[in-house]
Amino acid sequence: MARIDGRSSGDLRPVRIERGCNRYAEGSALIRWGNTHVLCTASVEEKVPQFLRGSGRGWVSAEYAMLPRSTHQRTQREISRGKPNARGQEIQRLIGRSLRASVDLSLLGERTIWIDCDVLQADGGTRTAAITASFVALVDACRWLMSNGLVGSMPVVHQVAAVSAGIVAGEVMLDLCYEEDSSAQVDCNVVMAEDGRFVEIQGTGEDALFSMESFRDMLSLADVGIRRLHALQLEVLGVGDLHEILAR
Amino acid sequence: MARIDGRSSGDLRPVRIERGCNRYAEGSALIRWGNTHVLCTASVEEKVPQFLRGSGRGWVSAEYAMLPRSTHQRTQREISRGKPNARGQEIQRLIGRSLRASVDLSLLGERTIWIDCDVLQADGGTRTAAITASFVALVDACRWLMSNGLVGSMPVVHQVAAVSAGIVAGEVMLDLCYEEDSSAQVDCNVVMAEDGRFVEIQGTGEDALFSMESFRDMLSLADVGIRRLHALQLEVLGVGDLHEILAR
Amino acid sequence: MARIDGRSSGDLRPVRIERGCNRYAEGSALIRWGNTHVLCTASVEEKVPQFLRGSGRGWVSAEYAMLPRSTHQRTQREISRGKPNARGQEIQRLIGRSLRASVDLSLLGERTIWIDCDVLQADGGTRTAAITASFVALVDACRWLMSNGLVGSMPVVHQVAAVSAGIVAGEVMLDLCYEEDSSAQVDCNVVMAEDGRFVEIQGTGEDALFSMESFRDMLSLADVGIRRLHALQLEVLGVGDLHEILAR
Amino acid sequence: MARIDGRSSGDLRPVRIERGCNRYAEGSALIRWGNTHVLCTASVEEKVPQFLRGSGRGWVSAEYAMLPRSTHQRTQREISRGKPNARGQEIQRLIGRSLRASVDLSLLGERTIWIDCDVLQADGGTRTAAITASFVALVDACRWLMSNGLVGSMPVVHQVAAVSAGIVAGEVMLDLCYEEDSSAQVDCNVVMAEDGRFVEIQGTGEDALFSMESFRDMLSLADVGIRRLHALQLEVLGVGDLHEILAR
Amino acid sequence: MARIDGRSSGDLRPVRIERGCNRYAEGSALIRWGNTHVLCTASVEEKVPQFLRGSGRGWVSAEYAMLPRSTHQRTQREISRGKPNARGQEIQRLIGRSLRASVDLSLLGERTIWIDCDVLQADGGTRTAAITASFVALVDACRWLMSNGLVGSMPVVHQVAAVSAGIVAGEVMLDLCYEEDSSAQVDCNVVMAEDGRFVEIQGTGEDALFSMESFRDMLSLADVGIRRLHALQLEVLGVGDLHEILAR
Amino acid sequence: MARIDGRSSGDLRPVRIERGCNRYAEGSALIRWGNTHVLCTASVEEKVPQFLRGSGRGWVSAEYAMLPRSTHQRTQREISRGKPNARGQEIQRLIGRSLRASVDLSLLGERTIWIDCDVLQADGGTRTAAITASFVALVDACRWLMSNGLVGSMPVVHQVAAVSAGIVAGEVMLDLCYEEDSSAQVDCNVVMAEDGRFVEIQGTGEDALFSMESFRDMLSLADVGIRRLHALQLEVLGVGDLHEILAR
Repeated sequence: MARIDGRSSGDLRPVRIERGCNRYAEGSALIRWGNTHVLCTASVEEKVPQFLRGSGRGWVSAEYAMLPRSTHQRTQREISRGKPNARGQEIQRLIGRSLRASVDLSLLGERTIWIDCDVLQADGGTRTAAITASFVALVDACRWLMSNGLVGSMPVVHQVAAVSAGIVAGEVMLDLCYEEDSSAQVDCNVVMAEDGRFVEIQGTGEDALFSMESFRDMLSLADVGIRRLHALQLEVLGVGDLHEILAR
Repeated sequence: MARIDGRSSGDLRPVRIERGCNRYAEGSALIRWGNTHVLCTASVEEKVPQFLRGSGRGWVSAEYAMLPRSTHQRTQREISRGKPNARGQEIQRLIGRSLRASVDLSLLGERTIWIDCDVLQADGGTRTAAITASFVALVDACRWLMSNGLVGSMPVVHQVAAVSAGIVAGEVMLDLCYEEDSSAQVDCNVVMAEDGRFVEIQGTGEDALFSMESFRDMLSLADVGIRRLHALQLEVLGVGDLHEILAR
Repeated sequence: MARIDGRSSGDLRPVRIERGCNRYAEGSALIRWGNTHVLCTASVEEKVPQFLRGSGRGWVSAEYAMLPRSTHQRTQREISRGKPNARGQEIQRLIGRSLRASVDLSLLGERTIWIDCDVLQADGGTRTAAITASFVALVDACRWLMSNGLVGSMPVVHQVAAVSAGIVAGEVMLDLCYEEDSSAQVDCNVVMAEDGRFVEIQGTGEDALFSMESFRDMLSLADVGIRRLHALQLEVLGVGDLHEILAR
Repeated sequence: MARIDGRSSGDLRPVRIERGCNRYAEGSALIRWGNTHVLCTASVEEKVPQFLRGSGRGWVSAEYAMLPRSTHQRTQREISRGKPNARGQEIQRLIGRSLRASVDLSLLGERTIWIDCDVLQADGGTRTAAITASFVALVDACRWLMSNGLVGSMPVVHQVAAVSAGIVAGEVMLDLCYEEDSSAQVDCNVVMAEDGRFVEIQGTGEDALFSMESFRDMLSLADVGIRRLHALQLEVLGVGDLHEILAR
Repeated sequence: MARIDGRSSGDLRPVRIERGCNRYAEGSALIRWGNTHVLCTASVEEKVPQFLRGSGRGWVSAEYAMLPRSTHQRTQREISRGKPNARGQEIQRLIGRSLRASVDLSLLGERTIWIDCDVLQADGGTRTAAITASFVALVDACRWLMSNGLVGSMPVVHQVAAVSAGIVAGEVMLDLCYEEDSSAQVDCNVVMAEDGRFVEIQGTGEDALFSMESFRDMLSLADVGIRRLHALQLEVLGVGDLHEILAR
Repeated sequence: MARIDGRSSGDLRPVRIERGCNRYAEGSALIRWGNTHVLCTASVEEKVPQFLRGSGRGWVSAEYAMLPRSTHQRTQREISRGKPNARGQEIQRLIGRSLRASVDLSLLGERTIWIDCDVLQADGGTRTAAITASFVALVDACRWLMSNGLVGSMPVVHQVAAVSAGIVAGEVMLDLCYEEDSSAQVDCNVVMAEDGRFVEIQGTGEDALFSMESFRDMLSLADVGIRRLHALQLEVLGVGDLHEILAR
């Protein structure tokens, strides 16, 4: 079955990552994934949350927000509503967990890397785009730590990228755009490392329950998509494989 | 390997549900799951969120909070901190999605059922306890709607319950208590319906990545645990099987 | 005149206190006073508010909240409304003052005992129930301080309990339930120590003014009620009289 | 025993009320009570809170705040701290109850009178000063309603004023200034109507318990003080007795 | 053309400044400028904002608020709305900048002078009244620092005052009252030092654009007005000219 | 004197405007002005603020925010700090006033155009960049209203653009970058229409007072800069002069 935009079920939308898009951040990446555009920066702060003080370990913390007109209809800013957006909080917790999984926090030392993901334009898959681009920003921030002699060895130890898959009109599809996502029966977000192991899997059926079999089908499609994203990340980072990053 | 509390890897902690614990709510249930105690109420409100007005459809919305001393160390109230707790927001969104999956919202009519889950004492697994007990409260609230002639047929169409599984010290285990959860390498929450299909699956590896194989092992343990919880829910609700609920 | 629930004017509703209901708190008590259920915990924190630092004196601070469906109609959580509930603030200040009166703050040392009172179900008299049960929790927290060698002598020096009285349909009554309270012309809350002296008296006439004579009648009824509550507290604490507590 | 400022135990500080101090408010009064200065306005709003809509009854609502430098040390504004001041909330609830007791809300019609009490300078007794001056502002606002034909008969039906009494160094005293209040063992606020009946009595012993006997002594002193304040209010309002107000 | 209140275009409204109106503040002034009344206090705090710690320099920070009934219609308090008023924030930033320009912050030492401007009654020109009176309060606070030996030389080095000018019905006018301000096509606020140089100029045309020529006309009127205000400030401060202040 | 980046005193930095950068907004423009990058969208909402309901007139409202890492050091989000940033509030009020001056609000009808200005990267002059680009977005939003038949004639009636000037090390300069701005003695923002008349002028001397003469010099430089910006706006909008816009 042809999809809205002509893709076949296992196709990703075109993805480009512009590395170093921000001149101040220690690492940054602007991802354009179809019509979803997310600006990600990685900022080094020389302190850690209360619960880690004195531990010798670092932290990676993520924040996620959408610009008011990143969406079809303008949405009010969080500060105007007076409270954080619950969906955004859920997403930024996912991004934070995913990137912490890529880092050996004891190698990072007592400092925090703040990941800021701001959605400039949203057409589905903003959380997976944010994770995928933030990994690039995070590597550059860690390289900056290395080249400034702040850490002795590369804190990044795994490569992470993320993609969505779902069931729309009974068919399993990779990388849902907004219109597909809106009508999806099941939605699944997968975060995976370079060796095919999982960092996080979230499968949700709001309009329909899903069987183990269709869940496996979604995971299979996701596996294919993430391998392509891993390759793109390496290319953007200018390395042939992950070991070149780790070796620095 | 023996667990902290002597359970084997596939054992649930003892679970009791006290139905109708609140004299005002249309439905209520206090669940005592090991040392985790959660008070759940289901309240009927005769209006729906803005986006559903005029749609003829209803809504199920969940709120989750922990009493300050439900935890080992006292935690500050959200209102004292001045902002919602992000973890709590993530959990209440999960509870809301899970219970909406059990209801045919068009049968509910333009009204909201508010699910309030307040953790009196926390020893791991509060979100799965909340979902499992809230289902009982939700059924009673829907029965109340039926017996008051507010709905024509039973809005509950699926039975949902939830359990956690995880990998601790390399071993896959069902239903982690707090101490196990704190040292878990991987943590998985599964929400499942009466027919074995999934409502939601969340697998997270913060301290370790996880393979497809160990993920399947966790899902298998969860499957066993949830079947027991489904049986307990039916017993507490005083029915032999789900059809007795649907038939009312 | 017979009351709604058949009590005579000077009767208390049945009161039960379940001591040690929370496994983490240094002291805890769940009070079931008629249909009013309040869960009270006493938590020790090893610091004091700014204004007491360096003074060698401690503090007792209370917080009070109602679960959303503790009431006939569901009420919104404070964090959802975005601001503290003014009535709750007034009540928690009363609870704090009342319990501070029972403690010699200089014996407590520079630490705070947090009293958390969460109303699970409300049928009138929640503030007096909270004070009465919190005293039990507070004694246990102070015993914990004693047995852990953190204080040299028992900081609790007075026993406090509280009850309401009011005028309903022209008649003076003890311990108003919600329905009586709603139609009361005058409402009075009395907090009293073991020797019959007062900690706090609040008399309020919203729908009617009240004379000195009827005020005295309310105080007399309150006196009788509080003596019974004092006896119950001692029984729950497993002592014959207050001196056994002080002696520890 | 001579007091700090030379008064005897039953003396009020000098009290002056400047009526009509604000050119926009329907009623206003600036009270200078010793060094305590409070600006009170009464504003008519042609709507009522939700719970009164359609009832035909009105409401009186009070707000109380202190200017940052009304106190010896500058205090932060509520909006800068991000949350309401709990003491202020307790006080404004007292002011609101007291003034509602002076009004027949069904004569007011479905409108609200907002009482704003802003403390310009604080030297003890701000809440009693606020109540005493707000009554003057409230009468003028009700006269404005009368003269504009918005109400058919005078909504004010009782005259209310308030004063504090306390026990300082073992001695019962009327109208505590800040320095006395800071060292008081017992503090009592009394709101009384023209016929000697009470609107509200609040007695608090933070540093000491108090007996019925000393409580009566405080009430006796308060009675004397309030009668003088009643006379002052009438004088400021330009009437010989309360009936002249009611008659308009 | 005669103005609403009979003034000619270059006339100020009558201005009076009551110095020392607050008994606690290190400096204070109540300005009555026509029907605009603003109470200004200057409070010394022995610490500075984070960015100045260790710099040896001080700070001047201003806060501005309106009492709820300072306006024709009652306005809600900021704390009730839950967020700061944007117009107030803009104004308090202007006041802060203006007064910092009058002080040599390195002479002040590491302390903050808080300027609190509370509008008791508003009839246009509240920000210029606040600046003009706050300068008086600020001088007194600095004199207090001098006389208490906290600073070695007078931190105030410039005299600042402010006035508005505008174009109403095509005519340039000095010192707009509220009614004029509401119908002004152009509004201009000017803050000027004793030597005729500017601290701040803000010209705004919401309903009309304005030419360089009319802008100059407004500045000329403002120049005249501010010279009169400078003279009034000196008179209130009890000095013949600015050097007498600086010399202390 | 050569400037940091080699410009002469009257030079603008290179400015590019990417029109239509957002696929959902009715109008949008991304301005890159030196290293300052601001994303501006104009969104049509079919309602107006309360005070305009029933007036037949429309409104233009602006919001301004900086991404956390738009600055040299990461700054906390407003929602994390829990309150709006005061500087941002001042700026968004300026943007709003400036753009309202370009529109005939009665031609707009009862609808609001929301201008969202989000700073992606800040190197000085963000407010003037925001105004200049927002005008482009606003014109496109009004063209959209025209082409959809929602308004009968073009609501935009003036062209507005803005630039800063300042005095750095005694020299008057156009268009300060961040490093210049940080050391500026005087800073001036000018908003001007196509006919050379002013919309808004703000001159501020925090570290130095400024004379009328140097103020005029700043306005002269600003005049030159804005004319270039006006030309750029027309070019980006694809018109030869403003009348082509008005004619549509």
